[in-house]
Amino acid sequence: MKKGRLEAFSDGVIAIIITIMVLELKIPEGGHFENLKPLLSVFLCYILSFINIGIYWNNHHHLLHATEKVTGSILWANMHLLFWLSLMPFVTAWMGENHFAALPVAVYGADLVLCAIAYYILQTLILKEHSKNSPFVKALGKDLKGKISPILYLIGIPFAFVNTWISGILYITVAFIWLIPDKRIERALSEKGNKAVDK
Amino acid sequence: MKKGRLEAFSDGVIAIIITIMVLELKIPEGGHFENLKPLLSVFLCYILSFINIGIYWNNHHHLLHATEKVTGSILWANMHLLFWLSLMPFVTAWMGENHFAALPVAVYGADLVLCAIAYYILQTLILKEHSKNSPFVKALGKDLKGKISPILYLIGIPFAFVNTWISGILYITVAFIWLIPDKRIERALSEKGNKAVDK
Amino acid sequence: MKKGRLEAFSDGVIAIIITIMVLELKIPEGGHFENLKPLLSVFLCYILSFINIGIYWNNHHHLLHATEKVTGSILWANMHLLFWLSLMPFVTAWMGENHFAALPVAVYGADLVLCAIAYYILQTLILKEHSKNSPFVKALGKDLKGKISPILYLIGIPFAFVNTWISGILYITVAFIWLIPDKRIERALSEKGNKAVDK
Amino acid sequence: MKKGRLEAFSDGVIAIIITIMVLELKIPEGGHFENLKPLLSVFLCYILSFINIGIYWNNHHHLLHATEKVTGSILWANMHLLFWLSLMPFVTAWMGENHFAALPVAVYGADLVLCAIAYYILQTLILKEHSKNSPFVKALGKDLKGKISPILYLIGIPFAFVNTWISGILYITVAFIWLIPDKRIERALSEKGNKAVDK
Repeated sequence: MKKGRLEAFSDGVIAIIITIMVLELKIPEGGHFENLKPLLSVFLCYILSFINIGIYWNNHHHLLHATEKVTGSILWANMHLLFWLSLMPFVTAWMGENHFAALPVAVYGADLVLCAIAYYILQTLILKEHSKNSPFVKALGKDLKGKISPILYLIGIPFAFVNTWISGILYITVAFIWLIPDKRIERALSEKGNKAVDK
Repeated sequence: MKKGRLEAFSDGVIAIIITIMVLELKIPEGGHFENLKPLLSVFLCYILSFINIGIYWNNHHHLLHATEKVTGSILWANMHLLFWLSLMPFVTAWMGENHFAALPVAVYGADLVLCAIAYYILQTLILKEHSKNSPFVKALGKDLKGKISPILYLIGIPFAFVNTWISGILYITVAFIWLIPDKRIERALSEKGNKAVDK
Repeated sequence: MKKGRLEAFSDGVIAIIITIMVLELKIPEGGHFENLKPLLSVFLCYILSFINIGIYWNNHHHLLHATEKVTGSILWANMHLLFWLSLMPFVTAWMGENHFAALPVAVYGADLVLCAIAYYILQTLILKEHSKNSPFVKALGKDLKGKISPILYLIGIPFAFVNTWISGILYITVAFIWLIPDKRIERALSEKGNKAVDK
Repeated sequence: MKKGRLEAFSDGVIAIIITIMVLELKIPEGGHFENLKPLLSVFLCYILSFINIGIYWNNHHHLLHATEKVTGSILWANMHLLFWLSLMPFVTAWMGENHFAALPVAVYGADLVLCAIAYYILQTLILKEHSKNSPFVKALGKDLKGKISPILYLIGIPFAFVNTWISGILYITVAFIWLIPDKRIERALSEKGNKAVDK
């Protein structure tokens, strides 16, 4: 019951975040093709953020599905995650309207890092409520995706001041890691991890 | 349970999409009849899009009602549908504010086609999870409406550059096909289909 | 189940309608008392519309609570009601920003009439699904409030061009009729009705 | 069932309130650090209001969780609370955009007082429906937090015209009182209370 309302509230906030981003696609004054062109970069940012928020919703959904008990700290860790997610429409529009200028690209990455950290805190708090043998803890496994994502974002931030393409590719790579069906990527990543360990 | 949250999230997003469109009805500065007039085309577009999104919500509701299992690909196919639906406020306002200029009318149709394709993908993925004898598969039948809609939209797009009235009539026709109670139109369409087959 | 999602979707749309109205309270540029003054009329309209939409949500809640079966026509009658409700933010802001000019006050009343009619249609369709002896039909009784409301609104519309105060008082009166606890007002109204019949 | 929809509607409204505040973080035109600076005060206000609304959602959640019966007056007391909460985006943005000028800071405090009063009314109405020995009444205890919060806000309002820092610190203090895990603060406060009584 308690969990149900936490999910419902989070769903509401995430649904609004993902949808109000479209309000930043300002309606162009003319009805010609040239009027659409300046919107291209905002549109591309919108796609990327739509996917990113979709990934967060998806993961949040699985995480809470597995949760049995909602404590006060879980509740506030969830609020903390929603806070950084709520800044996505702002950083998305800022990056898009300034055609991928260095600082906005770095700030976009910074918000992604903060979302990832907030998610990690939430996950850790939920894990603490579960025994090590619970199916949830086992399903999470090594959580390679969760660990690699903030690192790739963090690398992307300083690179924004060198070449924003590198940051862009890093951000998109993280999205792909999460979009590709779990098992294959998990296996690929864990093999790499094993090799690294072998060396 | 999992399905419930997918429905709740989709409901949230669709409810926001259908409602924020009204924000494009910019409040006129004066309180006279002349001040309302320039809003007429935006208002007409709002009505059409309100009905279209209502139809999508209605169909989505029936589709998920029949769904038993939510897989990762169903989840992302649903996100993909929500993405194209989320552009409806933009294309609606662009078409309305430019008083049905050719390109905005074509782009509006293009977004409708993309919504229809996304819906078709979602439906196909859900069908794959059901046996051929399930009541859901039977209820869907030949899905004539679902097949004819994107075709009519597709015809409407190039016609926008010839005469936007033709596109408009085609888009409205599709809305009517879905609004008219199922059985009659299904029968009418299937009779036509049979005649066409007979020839 | 089907009903649950209809309620959830309606809740979502009504929650958004009631909340986005506040966006029309444009943030004044200065931080002084004079900067707030021009917002007064918008604020008063906001209060009235907040109450009106609250009443609709409340009634809608009771109506659907009593509903057993959701048909296709009930679904679309509900959508029709949401459509006219979705125009409330527009007519509210237009009336407020033009400081209760004649036409906006009349248009506000017209939207209220259309909401009331849409609600009446929805109620009638739901009643058709119930037998005359169901507790729901009995609880609804003569539905004096439901019948008197659109009449008072209808009287308010032409009076906007004579004296907007009269329209305003009529609109506020209807809100009060619904806010005052049911039993007393129902009794008072039915006594009046009986007296009128006695004459 | 009735309670469920009241919760769902409140969740929807609160989720929208907390999220549309971000729309007041207007996208700066340039992509440089100087363009972000003027947003700092709006951003700080956003954080404070995000936490405040989070606290209200959290408390509302616990309050309704304990509620057994939803009466007409509870329903309208809830609407009344949502009304004052819905003004938070306005007062937040006004305070932020005017860089903590005296009047906006006072008005922000006034809205917080009105929210606290509305919450107190709602709580009192819900308490009336419960016997004195119910676990809910016992859990609420002396409700020191609930009593001290509006007093601190009320002190903050006149101080805004002396020194807005004092008001700011008072508002932040209240947020901290609610954020710190319940038991410790409750104990600390009740000890103070006891000492005061002893004198």
